[in-house]
Amino acid sequence: MTAATRRGIFVVAGYGNGSGQCIFVIREFAKAGYKVALIARGVAGADALQKGADEIIKAGGEAAPFPIASYDSSAIHSAFEGIKKRWPNEPIQVTLYNAAFGVWKPFLSVSEDDWKQSVEINVLAAVAFAKESILAFKENELNAEGKRGTLLFTGATASIRGNKTTSSFSSGKFALRSLSQSLNKEFGKENIHVAHSVIDGGILTDRRRERDPVAYEKIKDDLDTLLRPESIAKSYVYLAHQDRSAWTWEIDLRPAHETW
Amino acid sequence: MTAATRRGIFVVAGYGNGSGQCIFVIREFAKAGYKVALIARGVAGADALQKGADEIIKAGGEAAPFPIASYDSSAIHSAFEGIKKRWPNEPIQVTLYNAAFGVWKPFLSVSEDDWKQSVEINVLAAVAFAKESILAFKENELNAEGKRGTLLFTGATASIRGNKTTSSFSSGKFALRSLSQSLNKEFGKENIHVAHSVIDGGILTDRRRERDPVAYEKIKDDLDTLLRPESIAKSYVYLAHQDRSAWTWEIDLRPAHETW
Amino acid sequence: MTAATRRGIFVVAGYGNGSGQCIFVIREFAKAGYKVALIARGVAGADALQKGADEIIKAGGEAAPFPIASYDSSAIHSAFEGIKKRWPNEPIQVTLYNAAFGVWKPFLSVSEDDWKQSVEINVLAAVAFAKESILAFKENELNAEGKRGTLLFTGATASIRGNKTTSSFSSGKFALRSLSQSLNKEFGKENIHVAHSVIDGGILTDRRRERDPVAYEKIKDDLDTLLRPESIAKSYVYLAHQDRSAWTWEIDLRPAHETW
Amino acid sequence: MTAATRRGIFVVAGYGNGSGQCIFVIREFAKAGYKVALIARGVAGADALQKGADEIIKAGGEAAPFPIASYDSSAIHSAFEGIKKRWPNEPIQVTLYNAAFGVWKPFLSVSEDDWKQSVEINVLAAVAFAKESILAFKENELNAEGKRGTLLFTGATASIRGNKTTSSFSSGKFALRSLSQSLNKEFGKENIHVAHSVIDGGILTDRRRERDPVAYEKIKDDLDTLLRPESIAKSYVYLAHQDRSAWTWEIDLRPAHETW
Repeated sequence: MTAATRRGIFVVAGYGNGSGQCIFVIREFAKAGYKVALIARGVAGADALQKGADEIIKAGGEAAPFPIASYDSSAIHSAFEGIKKRWPNEPIQVTLYNAAFGVWKPFLSVSEDDWKQSVEINVLAAVAFAKESILAFKENELNAEGKRGTLLFTGATASIRGNKTTSSFSSGKFALRSLSQSLNKEFGKENIHVAHSVIDGGILTDRRRERDPVAYEKIKDDLDTLLRPESIAKSYVYLAHQDRSAWTWEIDLRPAHETW
Repeated sequence: MTAATRRGIFVVAGYGNGSGQCIFVIREFAKAGYKVALIARGVAGADALQKGADEIIKAGGEAAPFPIASYDSSAIHSAFEGIKKRWPNEPIQVTLYNAAFGVWKPFLSVSEDDWKQSVEINVLAAVAFAKESILAFKENELNAEGKRGTLLFTGATASIRGNKTTSSFSSGKFALRSLSQSLNKEFGKENIHVAHSVIDGGILTDRRRERDPVAYEKIKDDLDTLLRPESIAKSYVYLAHQDRSAWTWEIDLRPAHETW
Repeated sequence: MTAATRRGIFVVAGYGNGSGQCIFVIREFAKAGYKVALIARGVAGADALQKGADEIIKAGGEAAPFPIASYDSSAIHSAFEGIKKRWPNEPIQVTLYNAAFGVWKPFLSVSEDDWKQSVEINVLAAVAFAKESILAFKENELNAEGKRGTLLFTGATASIRGNKTTSSFSSGKFALRSLSQSLNKEFGKENIHVAHSVIDGGILTDRRRERDPVAYEKIKDDLDTLLRPESIAKSYVYLAHQDRSAWTWEIDLRPAHETW
Repeated sequence: MTAATRRGIFVVAGYGNGSGQCIFVIREFAKAGYKVALIARGVAGADALQKGADEIIKAGGEAAPFPIASYDSSAIHSAFEGIKKRWPNEPIQVTLYNAAFGVWKPFLSVSEDDWKQSVEINVLAAVAFAKESILAFKENELNAEGKRGTLLFTGATASIRGNKTTSSFSSGKFALRSLSQSLNKEFGKENIHVAHSVIDGGILTDRRRERDPVAYEKIKDDLDTLLRPESIAKSYVYLAHQDRSAWTWEIDLRPAHETW
């Protein structure tokens, strides 16, 4: 890779077990010349991170896993410290908070623990991740787009609409959306870009295949009923590469045939 | 009092130290014939609750304090148990979640503890309160308005707009708003009414006087710059008395001269 | 009637043929002590207006019809002139723009004339009505609520959401909602209250019965599937009687069992 | 040009006198391989269109002006007929409705003619343009993105917020936004993409320079206070090139230092 490799580092949190949209996202950022830092929690996460990083490396890019035991603020801080040590001369340019926790149950069936996990993953860990991102960006020079960095958040239909059976997930996602808006307004003047993406539909991922292989086979070549993760990934790179004279806080993404 | 006294019980959580809008709210519900159950936490809270209850009783109504040590779910559950024991033959008809926690600071200055308190008070305790409310309502017959009960939430400007220095408060308030919407949609079919009030401006309370007596004296007779808590209180009674054929999820309230 | 009769004049435009919600609205305002001025266009409108006025008068109130040939600005101006002549010593206190024009068709089937009528009735006539209302209010003393007058607009689901087959109706309703917000912001400082009501569901009116008598009989005693016009009417009086320290721009109203 | 030239035709309405953002938009679409069809009204418009087309041609692209006498539906229809005759073998792939009419005055100072022009330009002409666009798209094969065409609308802050002095402009822009949402929902299933862009800030155009040269010189190299039209143009091409598995209805764009 050439010039593009000087893009700096892309950090994603919430890689999960690798069966979600994140593998597509890191491919796209690697292709655009970013070094890729992968954060996920747990043992399954650690394996998946290594696998994801290996794929990027095999394709000629740079990537490294930063597994954490939990999403508390000190673990997230350690991950960022690790990232800076791994690539001491590269700026952290783009970060994506993709972690989410949700249960889809009637309100009276959502346990207290479900609610706690919702606020911990959807809000508190996002806050810690945002803090590390912004502190890192503040160290950067202005990039080609006139920015010090771009912090992206993955939202969902539930980010803009509470519904039956989504009370806890939606509360967390509303809170995350609010966080992204507050940060956009506060850090714009420091040329730090914060954006929120409302993914309004199901995504065509392996995770979906694992859950229901039969349904998956039927729809996998149909662009119309599910979002393709490659396309979501492209929208993230697009947001990261908007210059600061005309940047976006919020973009919605949905498949053509979605009823909304 | 006569017929109106058969209204049942009004429960409010987040009475604070009595210097906020709640004293006006309980006066209005007592006047409308409700027995008033007051929940607040801490020692200051307990004194204030007693004082608030005494005022209602002196005016010929019924009221009782239910202080709690913290806003965790078991404490809230105990308070509701106490309320049911206090008035075993009265239905809990209206509940108001008025508790809130906010700091107004730049994002990087908001401590981890501030964030935790925000999600605990603005979200998790609200969830526990909503659960107790809905479980109580499910025991009720239909009332004169065709409803089993009304659960009210106090929102703010920050419920619909994140801003510089409001990141934590706004996240909590967005989450609360989402909760209220999910619950409205889920429990409508059981004739349980859930509503959210967006208080979009400062309120003319003693709390404000305590903070800045000089400013308070200047504005206290001016209807135009601050919301009068009596008027907010009336809107809560109005929402509670809407019948189920045309009820409101969300209402905004602001003073005439507010720039918005 | 006594004190309440000194309320002043209530003006409604868009009475239609009397089979809609307006008959309930004028009953409620008459009961609250207002003189009622009824505006509708066309010959059918004129008959209906007379019938509506007669009912109010028979019940001991005051009312008069002001039929117009079309909703152009000069006709609306003449109607207001007529109202002022009819009750020269009474202030116009509350006005309601209830006229609407909608077709529910696929976009390519909506005729150019449909679109023109949509902007004429939903926007331009509303503007003319708002102008007459505000000019009238400016002549008023402050009323008991500290206001010079209240201008109400009837909105719908289509006011906040465009949809298949609603392109023209929804465009008109979005425009009307915007108008109401601009006016609320501009005239608040003059203590003129402008509010918008989002009626999110079908209404239990004779108009509905006329269209589908069989369906109507099945639902007419069910509070849960349609809004009762009496309840909508009460919400309009409530908005008109909010004092200026805590008034509402927008309220939503829907039946308990509406899926939204 | 090579492969990219097979992109088809890009049509823009509302080119004005060439001093706005449109010159940047057509450069960007020409660079991406589109043939450019320019629509504006009036004599000044016709000159500007020719100048804009000449620039594209000089740079090696293809472009042609389609001046119209007014924005009525038959004029817009004729323009589209002209475009199809000019490039009979090329599909109309992307269309942009950029025309707008606004006055910024207190409500009582907005003339009836201002209001009529607002609904004519902001709504009725947009409807006619949308109709022609969709009818043209329906003739197309699916393109590389799986779409039959993309219809773009230029929105503004006033599209989502009514305000003092914006009553007429904002009403028109709300209506346009609603139109774009209805069309997105209705034509998604036919793989026709409709998107709306909220330009939330001032734009760094010659029009601005003409109005206030001194202010313009001060800010022209500052990315932070105004949107650069080149960047807006890029976002339009981005939207046009989203594939149908993950497309956007609405995107906001604003400069980094905008207070919002």
